[in-house]
Amino acid sequence: MKKFINGVDSLLDDSLLGFAQAHAGIATLNSHPRFVKRATPITPGKVALVSGGGSGHEPLHIGLVGFGMLDAACPGQVFTSPTPDQLLAAAQSVESGGGVLFIVKNYAGDIMNFEIAAEMLGCANASVVVDDDIALPKDHPIGRRGVAGTLIVEKMLGAAAELGMDLASCKALGDKIKGRTASMGVTLSSCTVPALGKPTFTLGDTEMEMGVGIHGEHGRQTLPLSSATEIVETLTHAIQLELKPAKGQAILLHINGFGATPLIELYLIYQLAAQYWQGQGVIIARSLVGNYTTALDMAGCSITITLLDEELLKLWDAPVHTAHLRWGC
Amino acid sequence: MKKFINGVDSLLDDSLLGFAQAHAGIATLNSHPRFVKRATPITPGKVALVSGGGSGHEPLHIGLVGFGMLDAACPGQVFTSPTPDQLLAAAQSVESGGGVLFIVKNYAGDIMNFEIAAEMLGCANASVVVDDDIALPKDHPIGRRGVAGTLIVEKMLGAAAELGMDLASCKALGDKIKGRTASMGVTLSSCTVPALGKPTFTLGDTEMEMGVGIHGEHGRQTLPLSSATEIVETLTHAIQLELKPAKGQAILLHINGFGATPLIELYLIYQLAAQYWQGQGVIIARSLVGNYTTALDMAGCSITITLLDEELLKLWDAPVHTAHLRWGC
Repeated sequence: MKKFINGVDSLLDDSLLGFAQAHAGIATLNSHPRFVKRATPITPGKVALVSGGGSGHEPLHIGLVGFGMLDAACPGQVFTSPTPDQLLAAAQSVESGGGVLFIVKNYAGDIMNFEIAAEMLGCANASVVVDDDIALPKDHPIGRRGVAGTLIVEKMLGAAAELGMDLASCKALGDKIKGRTASMGVTLSSCTVPALGKPTFTLGDTEMEMGVGIHGEHGRQTLPLSSATEIVETLTHAIQLELKPAKGQAILLHINGFGATPLIELYLIYQLAAQYWQGQGVIIARSLVGNYTTALDMAGCSITITLLDEELLKLWDAPVHTAHLRWGC
Repeated sequence: MKKFINGVDSLLDDSLLGFAQAHAGIATLNSHPRFVKRATPITPGKVALVSGGGSGHEPLHIGLVGFGMLDAACPGQVFTSPTPDQLLAAAQSVESGGGVLFIVKNYAGDIMNFEIAAEMLGCANASVVVDDDIALPKDHPIGRRGVAGTLIVEKMLGAAAELGMDLASCKALGDKIKGRTASMGVTLSSCTVPALGKPTFTLGDTEMEMGVGIHGEHGRQTLPLSSATEIVETLTHAIQLELKPAKGQAILLHINGFGATPLIELYLIYQLAAQYWQGQGVIIARSLVGNYTTALDMAGCSITITLLDEELLKLWDAPVHTAHLRWGC
């Protein structure tokens, strides 16, 4: 394993210290238990947004804490769920009279630990479970995984909460956004979890994993590596079958890198995906390209679209000030 | 070679089309010859800032075009200098009565082509040659390479030009900034140039390349992989010998990833570097952590510091609105 690391045990804590120091005006770190919360004041009565999940997906979620997005995020160990005590402490720390909305990616461990925290929390709360990865069928026994669409849910809910939307309405809005969001990914390489010390899986020199998850989980199929155009067609066609955008529908198009894919390739993927949707008469109203929901050093990418309406467009455009997503302020 | 690509010949143009469409409000693309220019109006009389270089270092330079930073950037083929006609057309396109300042990374091909363009340009112009990579000795026959410090020069000069500073003063300011900036990098892996189709060089499973350049050029030494703490000490000690910051000196600390290094590792590097400088009594006044000056899919990082004063701090903090660096607007 070749990594910049001192020891597997100290990596996460040292890295979080670095994150908090580098972004001191935006986020602060609580070390025991581990959570990152916004450094700026929370308006009394605002719904508090709390997310979290295994580390290794940065900037998701810690880099998305701040004004107009998450109030707190709980990083678990690499690819490991945060514990209930982390989630509870984070929620209590940012609860400001408007209740707590948990944003949870759909993984068994996350679901369980967020549920325990929610039960222990002595105030109004609700959860939005994001399951935007359409690589798995809708009726999969553990449901679909939460992947890059989570950022979109967090951004729009963050704006809504900042504008004073109440807990029940935030919960309903979160369910609306996730229902209009679909993602699918592909990878050319595995990733290496520090504690494991070797790649999670192997792919042949001319193979790719279609429908891969953000931990390198098996997707739909291991396939021979094909052209970027064919890859984009497979991903977008699957998304089209799912969301069936009408001609004239405005979308947010998000090309997400899994960590080790150069921007020159991500912008190529964007260009091909944009061409595809425009060919379908769909309007690309907003775009986001970059490494946002990563899988350590995996060389892959995913395509996400969200069907926009006036409400969602306004929420996407609203000011946000986090370490890794920032505009309008 | 495993990449998202259709063909080596079309990669750059298709990727640039994607970039321009994804960031339509910020930058526009001129295809023949290739350059990216800001989409927002340039104040008449403002010094126009033009940079460029080989592609594969994204977001440098195209992602740094926009208000408060570059007026235009010329992408060459991957790791290949832009041609004089690109540079000339870009300069002519953004010249607004205040003359043109070229920001050039110190590589023989870049120097030559920028000089030719400067000679052909029929208006006042000057050049700042960035050579912040201290891996090579000061008296190296072709001089030191321009690396991640280039972003800092571009950001601060962009702010100064936006505030109305004239050409001669911008040139002097650029020379001042680069004189107060030093970088050094290390890599754990090579990178793969699409046209070459295989890694540029090889490193053993337990080796690292200390002092590597942003094209995977040999640096100071191939060494056995050591701990993150030892790596940071080597890099920062070299920078300290160069810039000799006094106790109480304020610095900008920039940890730059070369493309394939996860943020969890970059924040660890940041934390260790911050600890080092704080131990020297140096004040970390500003920070930037992320993949900004990349080398395609190379897994490595560099540390850059700039010695700040009141002027440079103000210029760093000034509003900037580009695709990949944005604050204050």
